[in-house]
This record gives sequence, structure tokens and C-alpha cells, in this order.
Amino acid sequence: MQGKKMIKVGIVGGTGYTGVELLRLLATHPHAQLQAVTSRKEDGMPIADMYPSLRGRVSLAFSAPEKARLTDCDVVFFATPHGVAMAQTPELLQAGVKVIDLAADFRLQDTPVFEQWYKMPHSCPELLKEAVYGLPELNRAAIKDARIIGNPGCYPTTMQLGLAPLLKADAVDASHLIADCKSGVSGGGRKTEIGMLFSEASDNFKAYGVSGHRHSPETLEQLGKLTDKKVGLLFTPHLVPMIRGMHSTIYARLTKDIDNAALQALFEDAYKDEPFVDVMPFGSHPETRSTRASNMLRIALHRPDNGDTVVVLVVQDNLVKGSAGQAVQCMNLMFGLEETTGLLHVPVMP
Amino acid sequence: MQGKKMIKVGIVGGTGYTGVELLRLLATHPHAQLQAVTSRKEDGMPIADMYPSLRGRVSLAFSAPEKARLTDCDVVFFATPHGVAMAQTPELLQAGVKVIDLAADFRLQDTPVFEQWYKMPHSCPELLKEAVYGLPELNRAAIKDARIIGNPGCYPTTMQLGLAPLLKADAVDASHLIADCKSGVSGGGRKTEIGMLFSEASDNFKAYGVSGHRHSPETLEQLGKLTDKKVGLLFTPHLVPMIRGMHSTIYARLTKDIDNAALQALFEDAYKDEPFVDVMPFGSHPETRSTRASNMLRIALHRPDNGDTVVVLVVQDNLVKGSAGQAVQCMNLMFGLEETTGLLHVPVMP
Amino acid sequence: MQGKKMIKVGIVGGTGYTGVELLRLLATHPHAQLQAVTSRKEDGMPIADMYPSLRGRVSLAFSAPEKARLTDCDVVFFATPHGVAMAQTPELLQAGVKVIDLAADFRLQDTPVFEQWYKMPHSCPELLKEAVYGLPELNRAAIKDARIIGNPGCYPTTMQLGLAPLLKADAVDASHLIADCKSGVSGGGRKTEIGMLFSEASDNFKAYGVSGHRHSPETLEQLGKLTDKKVGLLFTPHLVPMIRGMHSTIYARLTKDIDNAALQALFEDAYKDEPFVDVMPFGSHPETRSTRASNMLRIALHRPDNGDTVVVLVVQDNLVKGSAGQAVQCMNLMFGLEETTGLLHVPVMP
Amino acid sequence: MQGKKMIKVGIVGGTGYTGVELLRLLATHPHAQLQAVTSRKEDGMPIADMYPSLRGRVSLAFSAPEKARLTDCDVVFFATPHGVAMAQTPELLQAGVKVIDLAADFRLQDTPVFEQWYKMPHSCPELLKEAVYGLPELNRAAIKDARIIGNPGCYPTTMQLGLAPLLKADAVDASHLIADCKSGVSGGGRKTEIGMLFSEASDNFKAYGVSGHRHSPETLEQLGKLTDKKVGLLFTPHLVPMIRGMHSTIYARLTKDIDNAALQALFEDAYKDEPFVDVMPFGSHPETRSTRASNMLRIALHRPDNGDTVVVLVVQDNLVKGSAGQAVQCMNLMFGLEETTGLLHVPVMP
Repeated sequence: MQGKKMIKVGIVGGTGYTGVELLRLLATHPHAQLQAVTSRKEDGMPIADMYPSLRGRVSLAFSAPEKARLTDCDVVFFATPHGVAMAQTPELLQAGVKVIDLAADFRLQDTPVFEQWYKMPHSCPELLKEAVYGLPELNRAAIKDARIIGNPGCYPTTMQLGLAPLLKADAVDASHLIADCKSGVSGGGRKTEIGMLFSEASDNFKAYGVSGHRHSPETLEQLGKLTDKKVGLLFTPHLVPMIRGMHSTIYARLTKDIDNAALQALFEDAYKDEPFVDVMPFGSHPETRSTRASNMLRIALHRPDNGDTVVVLVVQDNLVKGSAGQAVQCMNLMFGLEETTGLLHVPVMP
Repeated sequence: MQGKKMIKVGIVGGTGYTGVELLRLLATHPHAQLQAVTSRKEDGMPIADMYPSLRGRVSLAFSAPEKARLTDCDVVFFATPHGVAMAQTPELLQAGVKVIDLAADFRLQDTPVFEQWYKMPHSCPELLKEAVYGLPELNRAAIKDARIIGNPGCYPTTMQLGLAPLLKADAVDASHLIADCKSGVSGGGRKTEIGMLFSEASDNFKAYGVSGHRHSPETLEQLGKLTDKKVGLLFTPHLVPMIRGMHSTIYARLTKDIDNAALQALFEDAYKDEPFVDVMPFGSHPETRSTRASNMLRIALHRPDNGDTVVVLVVQDNLVKGSAGQAVQCMNLMFGLEETTGLLHVPVMP
Repeated sequence: MQGKKMIKVGIVGGTGYTGVELLRLLATHPHAQLQAVTSRKEDGMPIADMYPSLRGRVSLAFSAPEKARLTDCDVVFFATPHGVAMAQTPELLQAGVKVIDLAADFRLQDTPVFEQWYKMPHSCPELLKEAVYGLPELNRAAIKDARIIGNPGCYPTTMQLGLAPLLKADAVDASHLIADCKSGVSGGGRKTEIGMLFSEASDNFKAYGVSGHRHSPETLEQLGKLTDKKVGLLFTPHLVPMIRGMHSTIYARLTKDIDNAALQALFEDAYKDEPFVDVMPFGSHPETRSTRASNMLRIALHRPDNGDTVVVLVVQDNLVKGSAGQAVQCMNLMFGLEETTGLLHVPVMP
Repeated sequence: MQGKKMIKVGIVGGTGYTGVELLRLLATHPHAQLQAVTSRKEDGMPIADMYPSLRGRVSLAFSAPEKARLTDCDVVFFATPHGVAMAQTPELLQAGVKVIDLAADFRLQDTPVFEQWYKMPHSCPELLKEAVYGLPELNRAAIKDARIIGNPGCYPTTMQLGLAPLLKADAVDASHLIADCKSGVSGGGRKTEIGMLFSEASDNFKAYGVSGHRHSPETLEQLGKLTDKKVGLLFTPHLVPMIRGMHSTIYARLTKDIDNAALQALFEDAYKDEPFVDVMPFGSHPETRSTRASNMLRIALHRPDNGDTVVVLVVQDNLVKGSAGQAVQCMNLMFGLEETTGLLHVPVMP
């Protein structure tokens, strides 16, 4: 791609947290040109009126979908509730527009599983087949050629990148993996639910969805591609009183006689060319804030008491590598840009 | 004990968080009479000058140890760094004073293990043998007759109460237990360490001590008493940006064919007469704030996908049931009081 | 009142924060017996299911208003939106039930002012005349004999107690008072508004309602009773990322030649017998947490550069002295109990 | 300046919050080349080991001052305690190096006032005379030619930019200004003080230094240049439980008959060409988070009850526009770069 070509970008659903994070990232992306951000409810309202952080940086107003002329875009991001993207994707594809869905419409190749977990029929199962799972570190080649991206869930990103080297090397018991995951509150979206209120979520910690969470089937489906063993995963999400950040503590039982240096080498080799995966020294304790507002994901390995269980710690910013940043990373790949373009923010610390 | 008899109480080390929490609880305890709170550094300073929350409620000043006449007390609490209690306990016992140590000096019966983890020789190993582990729900009879209490660590309290019914029933694989635990920042004490600063710990989440933590040997020693199997425990502590509260997520693989109702019954039966252990309905998600500033500990069971792993969620206030409240509960038992005396605070919510 | 007589208590609207705080306080009040807590929406739901902090402590279920038999109570608290209490009060009074309204229906004696600020007609203006403003420190005698209490707003409590000694002594320019006030988020109630979300209110600070706030007219009306000068008050509320707590920084220009000791004496004399007002040493900096979960309000005076402006710092827990605690304090007075009954919680620190 | 010329930058004291914020900003500054970051204590330690957020982005190690060869730099930033910069500045100037001090050594032109407030003699009062106060919006021309910059304090930045248009227009009573200011905890630095601990500062609010704060004399000195009236300022700082962010609520009594549109125009005109000052619509409530991690400062005006007092609300990120960002803005001016170079971060929201 030539240095100066601009990608015309549309966003459907720019009022939530993944939407405003996309706007933050795209506002300084040297090859992105925002064309339209849709919101039926806020039609005509300047985006910066809702998000004063964007005053002087984003001059667009929200527009109702029918005015937005999304078919003129090069790419459309869906930062919407599940079910919206699949309704609009066929028309966009026909107009030659690429689609990146930050929700779940195109994450699960298995339609019945999708319908079971999301309680809605899938309106375009044939496009689901075509869709590419947008985790560049495990799926880069396919993303480059994709027309439709199912952008990974935030939890699944950490679980897959934390487990991939172990599963590929057939080093652990794939049938009894445990991922004890903790997320900042923004992961729940900008929804007026009681549990998301400051006075409920602050100075508090809890698990939720322990008996079953939508990010399980997606993770199982993807992990299954990395091994020929049957994958069993116990995934326990928790809510942390912080805005951004995700920490996954992953437990896997080793099935091979492997020393710590070799374990560490598995990860360092797997990610040595990855600009957004940082394998820290063995025994490190990564902090979520070391990735705040950036597209970095960091991993560290432990092996308590030199026993048979490896503990993998993974951190990321759930709104960036866990969502909007990963989507922009996919866009860069799809349009032949340097993968890191517009994504080299230094994490905000403190 | 007669209704009006007052217990003369001394506190060594009242300037930290467990110390001030003891003061909060004892200030309204109907049978406790504060005699002395020692602090060499703050000798003469009214306690309420350091902790204005106690203005009008605690009129004592800190006193240097040599002035404090602790041997006139009925009981002395040590809310001190490890190593202080064992130095002073022999003299106190000789004077007929009972000792409750909130630090680790009397928690580990195994002296070499103590010395390995706390990097100091134990000065009175024979008293260590006599000392009673102060977890009333598992050790009530011994506590009643004890002269020395080793008050449990905060994490170990949750792990033991969360695992005891399973181990006693021989229902799980004791050799591969996992406890993924999360604590509020006050658990680290009132210490000026960089990592405890607001700007470091806030809006952040991290694991620490993954390769080994002092609460492991204590927990292993106690769990070992509940089963004749060899106990293996992988314990991973994390730091949560909240002041108080502890949440342990415990994973154990079932070795018995047992249905969920029977699992739940194990816990309900075990704790049916316990005033401070609340077994919630199967599948609940207890929140740490539901115990805030109270001596309650709550437990809930899950069995994801009806599989072979039971997940036990345990919450408590780390400074109350995890420390000062448990110590007062022990005191009540040791002096023949109703066990709940002075401990029936309703959790503060929101 | 005899030691054993129990007051039968009803609560209308027990699902919000002031409601659950009333429940926390009344659950351990030795003379209160909860009869009914109404909620049409949650009819039949055990209160402890909504608020697990009350498990084992409150066994009542919510009941629909028509089943609640509030007329059998001795007193009914309204922890409802504005407008509810005035609709039900006439019937309750007729049945001999006393009413304490935690909302604004009975705070403003001036009906037109009420109607202007609350955008609704007042349905019983004659009862408004009878209602007593429930600030015991300034209105104790009237409260004892009252049938209807308009419980003060949280901000007004701090402003009145912070200014009363100065206005009574005619020591400051009453026409240009400034109160720069800061509140924890729970003051906004348990409402699903975007601005109350954790991800919006956390790690953030803002003013709101600077051009006019409902607590102004109430405060002006009450302050006007303390002086024959015209009162002018500039009140600026702000939102602090904390759950509970309120801090008012009050500026008043001195009109008298008065030294700091005399200033301090004004406050110490005014509140010397008050169990819930703590005048700290001159030049102190009270922290909100020194009142957390207690009915204490603390005041400290400053006089920067020994100039002509006195700065009064006032802190309280907005849900206790600022709301539910004050209401219980009024109840104690109305039923001839010791004023501090059930209200001697030690503030929770840290 | 030509597009490719790189400025060689040294930082003295890179271990604190202003130091690491400088590193964050300079790591992506297209014309800055980090040469040395000094720390005697951490000599040889890779900076990214202390601040993992910089892994992969800053490869330098800390170096002891004597190894750092700061005299080879084009500019040296001092992010040190007060007193360090003045000791090293003479030698640097002699070597042709420009100096930007983020502490107070070069803020106060009045040496006796400096010595009174900072309790140390000033070692180079003649350089103090030469030093330029680094607030570009009020002092741009002088900054361009300066060799030494005294970078403004965080509070003074908000007070000056919030008051300048009013004082220049002689519209308010300069003798009785009130600034009620609130700061995030990072403003106190990365110091292990008890009051800065998470468990002390979280869920809490307090004023501090009400009787006198070092930022007063600096502000008075600068405000005095904007008016020929005597300036009197009552400045009250408060601590907010948030990491970054500052909110100043400023009260000034109008002395002119001026309507709100004219008031607003005063500010809009004053700042119409300023890239980092955003005058919001009259009556807005700016939130600190709308500037988080960016160099923006936002202002909004209010006039409650249309009375004689104007309320100015000012927000900024205390570590960026309030410190490191402003310093880089000065550097850009001193080296003939576009003023916004490397400073166009979009605020991080949520």
C-alpha cells in the first residue's frame, strides 16, 4: 500500500466503550479516515459532545444508519451488541466493504453453538464459514485475505495466547485446563446495569458466570485447532474494581518432562517476532497497568515448587488488545499496512 | 462467665491495620477493657491522634512496652511483625496471661518449616508445641483451653474452610488442589512499600508470590489433619485494588460419584451451627463486600458443565474473619463468653 | 421509655442505598422491630436475596404496599423518590403512625419553592407546615414532639452544622457564603444512570449542578433561621470516586475582629454536648473515612494567612449522618430513647 | 528546525512519576533522543525493569550521574526533589545545555520567598533571575529564548489559566480570589509516605495544607504580573482517590457589569489559538478524565443564580499539562519545533 492512501472507515455503534476506544485509536491512525459513526438514537449529535475527551480531535457527528452511507467505506467496524453485524454484513460485502465485528457474530464457526449461547438464529451461516477469527498471532495469513473478521473476545485472547505454545508442543494435559480470569469493569460495556454501578463494583471483588460463560465455546473452538487432543477448559471470570485491564491466571498440568528453561523457550520462540506479545522473564509478575491504554499483551511463566503444574500469567488492556486495538491490528493486516501502524502507544503508567 | 466480668486486654503493636481493627472491635465489645496498647515509637501519643476514627471512643495513649504492665492483663494480642510475640510470650504465660498472636509465630507446629519460611530461629519451640491454631470452626475445643493462640493467616482461613468438608469426606483429589486467591491491599499491612502506594495499586491487578508464599506451609499443615491422603496445594495470591476483602476461588477434582445436592449438603452440614460461616445456595456468586467490616465468611459451590471439578468460592473481610475478628472470636472462646460477643456487626453495604 | 418496649418500624422503599442503610442500622437497634419493608416490584423477595450482606440478620421479605399494613407500625421511614411520602403520610398520621421522610417532601416549609425545585405540586401543604426539619443539633426540641420529620439532605447537614456557630454569633458576612462540597457516589442513589457507572465515575472528578442544586433552597431556608441577615450561599457540589463520604469546604468572610481561639471556642461551645459532632483541634484536616459507616460528623477550622476568611472543613458519611443515621437519631428522640441508641458504631478504618 | 534533527535529551531523576511520564512522552517524540537517565541508586538497572510499561520502548539503563555525560545533551530535564536542579544547572549552562526543571528551583523569582517556603538557601540566585516561568500560554515568547525553564507547579497551572482572562480584563476583585483545588494522588509523587498508601488514600477525601501550601507564592507571583491590583488568593488543596487528574474550582467576585456572553468571550478570545486549552461551552462540567494522559486543559464558566460571583472550573492531567507534558511543550518551543510535537495524545477514556 502506498504511504498516503487513506482507508475510509465506518463505525456502527460508536457510543459504547469499544466504540469510543476505536475512535481514540483511529483519530491518530495515519491511514484511517473516519467517514461515519452511526447511532440511531444520537443522530446529529457531535461525537465529542458525548465524549469530551475527543473535543478538537473528532469533528464528526453521529449519524442514523440510513444516512451514513457505509457502503462507501473501505471497512466497517461493528462495535454493537451481538446480532447487529450479521444483519448488515451481506450488503456491505456486496458493496466491496470489509467488515470487522467486535461482537460475537462471526467468532464461532459452529452455528448451532452460536445459536445455543447467543439465543438467536444466525442470519448468514454461510458468511460465518467465510469469516476469519481475528487473532493475528495465531491466524495472520488468513486475516490478510479476509473480507469478514470475527474479532476475538477479550478473555479468549489471553487464554489462547497463554496456552498456544503449550498445546502446540503437546506439553500439557489439554483435557483439564483451568483459566482463572479477572477483568476490569469496562469489559461489561457502557450499560446501565446495577452491578456496573460505582457503588456496587467499587471496593468489591466477585466471580460471575462460573457455571458457564460465552467466551468458553469460542476459546474451545480455537484451542481445538492447536492440538489433536480433546480440549477441556474450566474458565472462571471475575470482576475487578478497575476500569481497564485483564489478568488471566492459567493452570496446566505438564505431561512431558520439560525443564523451566525449555518451557520459557517455548514461549519466547513462539512470540519472538510478535510486536504485541511480550514474554517476560520466567517467574515475573506482570501487572495489568503495564499494558494500560496500549495494544501490548504480556506473559510470564511460573512453576511453583518445581511441580507438575505450569502457571501462565497473561495481562492486557481489555479494550485495546482485548478489543479495539486488536481490531485495528486486523485492519492493518487486511489493508497491507505495517501491522503496528497507529498502535504504538506507550502504556500509561501510573 | 458472669455477665459483668471484664477481660483486661493488652495489645502489642496497635499502629498497624490489624491493630486498629482490633481496637475498633474491642471498643464496643461488652466484656473487653483496654488496658494498654504498646508502641515504643509513639509512646504517649493518644491513639485517637493517629486514628481519628477512634476519637471519643478510645481514650488510651500508646505506651512504651516497659510502661505498659502487660503482665496485669488477662489476655494480650500481638498485632506485630513476625518474631515479636515469641520473644514476649514466655514471660506473659508465666504471669498467667493468655496470648493471641495475629502474626505467624505460633501458627506452624513444625519448627524447621517455620524457620525456613520466616528466616529466623524460633525462640520458644516448646511453646510452639503447646500453641493452638485459632480457627474455631475446625478447632473449637482446643481453643477453649488454650493459653497461646496462633491466629490463622487470612488466606489460610478461606482455603481451610473452603476445603475442609471436601477433604473430610474424601471427595476430592487432595494431591492437586488449586487455590487462586485475591486480597484487598490492607492485607499487606500499613507499610510504606512502593507497591502499596495508591498510584501503584489502584486501577491495577497482579499476582504476587506465585512461586511460593508463607501461607502455603501453614495451610498444608492444617489441611493435612483433615485427611490421611497426601495434600498438594497450588496457592496463587493476587492483589485487588480494594481496601478490604478476600476472595478465594478453589478448584478440586472430584474422586467420588457425588451429585450437586450431596456436595452442597456436605457444606451445609459442616457449617450448620457456625455463626460466622454462611453457605449460600449452590451456584451463588458471593461478593467480598457482603462481608465488609464483619466477621462473616461466605461460601458458594459450583460445578461447571457438571464436570469432575468442583469450584468453591469463599469470601471474607481479610481484617475481620481473616484476622482481628477471628482473634476476638478466639478470645470469646478462651474466656467462656458467647462466641459471637461483640462480633455481630452487619456488613457495610454499599 | 421502658427498656424493653420495641418500636414497630416500617420502611417504604427499602431497595435503595438509604433503605439498605436503614436496614443495617435497625437490624442491630435494640428497640427497633422491623415490621415491613415495601417494594411493589420485589413483592415476596427476601430482602437478603437482594442484599446478601443482610443474610442471617434480616429475615423479612419485601412486601407490596397493600399487604404491608404500615398503619400498624409506630413509625414509617420513607426511603423513596421525592413525592411518595407526601401521598401516604395523611393516612399514616391518621392511624397514629409517625413519619420520617428521607426524601425532600417535608424539608421545605415554603411550598412554592418546593414546587419550583421538585417540579411537582405538593399534595399536603398543611402537613408541610406541621413537619419538623430533622436536624437534631439545631432542632432537637421540635423533633421530640414531631409527627412528621423531613430528614435533612446530606449536603445541607454539613453546611448547616459548619455555619451555624458563625451565623449565630453574627461573625461572618452571611450574604456571600461559599460551600464547595464533595460527595461519594452513593449519594446519587442506586440508579442506573450512565454517570454512576464504575467506568464513568472511577478515576475521575467533576463538579455538577453548579448552576443550581436542590439542596440550596433547603439550606437557605434553614440558615435563614439562624440570623436576621440576608443569607447568600454559593453551593458547588462535586462527585468523588469513593462510595461513601462527604467533605464540605466552607468559606466565610469574617465581619468581626475575632481571634482563632475565640473562633474555635464558638464551635466547641456550640457542640460540646453533641454526641455526633466532633470539633477537632484548630487547623486539623478531617478525612471522610474517619466517619465511615458511623453517625459522626467532624469539623475543623482554618484561617489561612491569618486573613479575613475562615475555612470550615466538615466531613460525614453521607449515608449515615447524612441520611439514614440522622433519621434513626430523630426516631430515638421521637420515641424518648437515648439519642445515641443503636448509633454508636465505630467508624470503619481502613 | 529541520525535520530530522534530533534533540539529545537527558533526564535527572527518572524514577519518580514525573520522570516516567517524561519517558512515556519522549519515547514517541519524533525529535527527542534519550541519551541518559540518571539515578545513583539504580545505576545500571534497565529502566524497563523498574517500569515494565516501557519494555520494548525504552532500552536505556539508569546511570549514575558521573557516568551520564549530561553535558553532551542539548537539554536536561530535572524530575528531582527541590534543590537538585540548582546545584547542577551552572555547569550544564556553561556546556551549552538548556535546563528544564520540573521542581521548584527556578519557579520563584523572589529568592527570599523561595528560601522561606523550601527551607533551603538558593545556590544560584543570579540564574533564578534569568530563569523563565514555563507556562507557554502566558509566557511563550520568553520561553522560546530561555536557557532555564522553571516548569510550573500543577495547581498553579490551573489557577493561572483559569484566572488570567479575568484579571487581564480587570473584571474581578483580585484581592479575594478563592481556588478550591482537588488533585489525584500521583501529584504527591512516588514516595513511601503513609498517607499515599492505597489503604489510606482510597475511598477517602480530605483537604491538606489548608493553612499554607508552596504553590501559593508561585501563583501569587505570576498572577501579580497580570494585574496592577493587589492579588489575594485563598488556595485550598484536596486529595482525590484517583491516580491522575486535577480539578480546580475557582471563585471570583465580579467588579464589572458584564454579562455571561461577554465573560465567555473573554476566555474564548484569550485561548482561541491555544492548542492545549479548551474553553468549553458556558455552564459545562468538565471531567478530569476528559484530559487523562493528554496535554489538554479544559475550562468552563458558571455564574450561579446570575449573581456577582463567577465560578471557573479547570481540569487537566496533573502529570501531563500539570508537569511533564508542559515541560515537553516548553522544550518544543525552545528548540523551534511545532509546539504540539509529540503531544497530541487523545485522552484515554474510559
